[in-house]
Amino acid sequence: MSSQPVLIGGEWVSSIATKIFQASNPATGEVLPGVYPVSPWSEIERAIQSAASAAKVMRGWSGERFAKFLEAYAVRIEAKKAELVAQAHLETALPAEGRLAGNELPRTINQLKTAAVAARSASWCSPTIDSKANIRSQFGPIGPVVVFGPNNFPFAFNGISGGDFAAAIAAGNPVIAKGHPSHPGTTRIFAEEALQAAKQTEMPPGFVQLIYRTEHADGVKLVSHPLIGATGYTGGRNTGLTLKDAADKAGKPIYLELSSINPVVILPGALAERGDKIAEEFSASCLMGVGQFCTNPGLVLLLQGPATDRFREDVRQRFAAAPVGTLLGSGVSKSLEQGVNTLAAHGATVETGGKIGGGKGASFQNTLLRTSGALFLKEPHALQTETFGNSTLFVECQSITELVQVLDVLEGNLTGSVYSDTTGKDDSNYEKVAPALRHRVGRLLNDKMPTGVAVSPAMNHGGPFPATGHPAFTAVGIPASIHRFGMLQCYDSVRESRLPETLKNRNSGGIWRFVDGTWTQADVSI
Amino acid sequence: MSSQPVLIGGEWVSSIATKIFQASNPATGEVLPGVYPVSPWSEIERAIQSAASAAKVMRGWSGERFAKFLEAYAVRIEAKKAELVAQAHLETALPAEGRLAGNELPRTINQLKTAAVAARSASWCSPTIDSKANIRSQFGPIGPVVVFGPNNFPFAFNGISGGDFAAAIAAGNPVIAKGHPSHPGTTRIFAEEALQAAKQTEMPPGFVQLIYRTEHADGVKLVSHPLIGATGYTGGRNTGLTLKDAADKAGKPIYLELSSINPVVILPGALAERGDKIAEEFSASCLMGVGQFCTNPGLVLLLQGPATDRFREDVRQRFAAAPVGTLLGSGVSKSLEQGVNTLAAHGATVETGGKIGGGKGASFQNTLLRTSGALFLKEPHALQTETFGNSTLFVECQSITELVQVLDVLEGNLTGSVYSDTTGKDDSNYEKVAPALRHRVGRLLNDKMPTGVAVSPAMNHGGPFPATGHPAFTAVGIPASIHRFGMLQCYDSVRESRLPETLKNRNSGGIWRFVDGTWTQADVSI
Repeated sequence: MSSQPVLIGGEWVSSIATKIFQASNPATGEVLPGVYPVSPWSEIERAIQSAASAAKVMRGWSGERFAKFLEAYAVRIEAKKAELVAQAHLETALPAEGRLAGNELPRTINQLKTAAVAARSASWCSPTIDSKANIRSQFGPIGPVVVFGPNNFPFAFNGISGGDFAAAIAAGNPVIAKGHPSHPGTTRIFAEEALQAAKQTEMPPGFVQLIYRTEHADGVKLVSHPLIGATGYTGGRNTGLTLKDAADKAGKPIYLELSSINPVVILPGALAERGDKIAEEFSASCLMGVGQFCTNPGLVLLLQGPATDRFREDVRQRFAAAPVGTLLGSGVSKSLEQGVNTLAAHGATVETGGKIGGGKGASFQNTLLRTSGALFLKEPHALQTETFGNSTLFVECQSITELVQVLDVLEGNLTGSVYSDTTGKDDSNYEKVAPALRHRVGRLLNDKMPTGVAVSPAMNHGGPFPATGHPAFTAVGIPASIHRFGMLQCYDSVRESRLPETLKNRNSGGIWRFVDGTWTQADVSI
Repeated sequence: MSSQPVLIGGEWVSSIATKIFQASNPATGEVLPGVYPVSPWSEIERAIQSAASAAKVMRGWSGERFAKFLEAYAVRIEAKKAELVAQAHLETALPAEGRLAGNELPRTINQLKTAAVAARSASWCSPTIDSKANIRSQFGPIGPVVVFGPNNFPFAFNGISGGDFAAAIAAGNPVIAKGHPSHPGTTRIFAEEALQAAKQTEMPPGFVQLIYRTEHADGVKLVSHPLIGATGYTGGRNTGLTLKDAADKAGKPIYLELSSINPVVILPGALAERGDKIAEEFSASCLMGVGQFCTNPGLVLLLQGPATDRFREDVRQRFAAAPVGTLLGSGVSKSLEQGVNTLAAHGATVETGGKIGGGKGASFQNTLLRTSGALFLKEPHALQTETFGNSTLFVECQSITELVQVLDVLEGNLTGSVYSDTTGKDDSNYEKVAPALRHRVGRLLNDKMPTGVAVSPAMNHGGPFPATGHPAFTAVGIPASIHRFGMLQCYDSVRESRLPETLKNRNSGGIWRFVDGTWTQADVSI
């Protein structure tokens, strides 16, 4: 059976794959028509060589070139909106209007445009000048970047259109995208537009490339290849750790977003003041997108007592009454079942849900589990098992001291939220909770669920291991996310005419630079 | 035999070590009097626990606290200058006046003071504010840092006084220093002063700790321990890679400076214009500190021809005529011999030197080797063997194309230099050479040897693997070097009164912050 071509070296070429795969519709179980290749190593290697050639051609190019591509691509995506939404809806069962068309596509386009602005203004480069010593440095492109997209955001984190893609390009690198096998048709449409945008803006062949799937061993070879600069990976923990191990050994930076249960602490004053409102807010956040967000609130910490009993009962009823959504595939429902079983086997009781089914196609009942702080402290590892999907675990503690002990045994997470009352009753408890939580998470929230991840320069969508592989980097938020795909490049006594534009005495672009200890948009006076 | 105590939990405690070691004087081979412990795991674990307690106590502390410690420590070091210089001279054979007293100690004191300024001004934190979305972020302390100091800079890179130490402290972290076993007495003096400075500025016990030596397996456990935040390591490649593997698996950032041969390209115009001057400059740089610098020029790329023949002969004579210095120890001379033998076995010819001895104590003849571009391209791996010490390899190429091919197969290096003439004759060659070299090195120099590493905000003492473990970070240059020991911490809708001072609307410290896309020292207007 002949499969879809892959995008290598600036052209759609027939794959020489002997293995193929097809996606299916999670809502119906129906196998979808497109047949896609599992690319053999020789094909992947051609993509690597072509990316390396592109990187060589582009050495020294200004950010303007990359900005033009990103903008042209954004315009083309906008024009393909209907087709993209229809295909992604088929492949992911995510709601076409509210989610895909109304939210995720605009976010994707906005990310590409924001990355274009950052490339043009060199805001991500942190140009730093010591005029007296004539030493100058800035971030420059790290080399060809591999991007592995996840299953849960077919647009905004897609390997060839999402945040990692935009960041890698804005830094001036070619990208080899590895599509997620659950939505190859969506990825193909993006790749067609990316290729056209690349031609339109005269980028070299090998600038954007796409393979749909690889053997595991070839993924390992890809991320550790000498010609690769860095890798961005969003997905499951096991595959991520295998890739990380290979990349680390080769000394190749790899940025991973692996897993996070996003603790939410609800202090007693907040519960007394507005328990109903928080129950509503929490349930909506936890069930949104059928819980398939990296920042889904999967762990709630409370103090034992009648108010917590009422709150839990309120959430239980809301979970039981809410419609059960369709998951991204049967793989998700199976691993959700496994996760819930693990929690139950280690002392969590199922308050509602807990079984496969309940919705259209691939689904799992909205699930609320409960355990005590004491039990959690006995089995901290097992009770931190991520249940990716519409499931959450309440940990009810005897005292604030015990609750802080629970925080102290948490693994790294992307987010941590604290709800407190508005009149100061929770303030002394907040002061105990927040410092412990602060050190475990990338983003600390007050009175807010973690599911919204604004594309803001101040955002941190990152956190200590195993939430990510390095706590100094963020996957969302421009310009910071672009730094991941840059290397620090210093120019020591390099003659003025040979410096990159962004480091010359004259600041022709009026960009922000750190000159002799001061941030300025001015020229360097000599 | 009872050994020197170790510094754990704020006190000098007797080590329970059963293994001990002593340093020796490289100039005489004489074993020096101090007896030092190889700390067993239980001792190391106490240090980790104590550091973790210190980190907890210090959560939320302002940079001012750390600045005060760094300054107090700098003052105390200045007062101990004579003792430090005498002890380090005994243990390293580095010249007491010119190098230790005249250069390295002032540098060390300057680094501590500069780190204090950065801690106080929060310049390393990159506070970033999105006032509309009320999302704010900055870098905060990563947790207890382990610092492994190398043998070659007993002051400026010492685990308890050097650049990594200063950076880790400026970021607000406790440090567990692992002294280098070749200069334990020097390290002990520093640790005594560090402890006094810590007491004087009311830092918690466990803030600065010292162990002299560990079993290899315990070093691995140390850098991957759950309570450790990050590690800084400067030293040999094999040990470094073992530690890196362990830390990477545990998801703990580790910053390494491993090895670098620092290519220097000398273009024909420069050779014609000022070959004598360059020969003098090169010989001085290569033999300075008996070649024991991370940035020692170990690889010189030239075009074949009579001018290169003259240049080589000039350098050969200078090497043969120059006094042979004392190396840091017999380990260095042995590994230098091994390295030179490896180069010779793979097609390099020895032009001068090549044998152990020639100087006082541990020494190796000043050594110049030579090979061709064609041979280098056949054995690129072996011919990039680092010969740490007073040795260098000339690679003489047939054409600029071949020279660029050589650059294209180089591993990552800290530095790369290009010498070109002043009238433009080398310009077209420079344009071929510089982009290839740029991508392989952290710091690109023009007409300058790489051995000087200024403590400048624009410095990059880093580079692609295996020069370091990650090309986005620098070990020298403040504030950038401090970033290595920070984690990105975002505050999403956190109430104003609960924000760190540096992220509040009012900019009480007048620090530089990135507010709504603009760098400013002003308050956030609300």
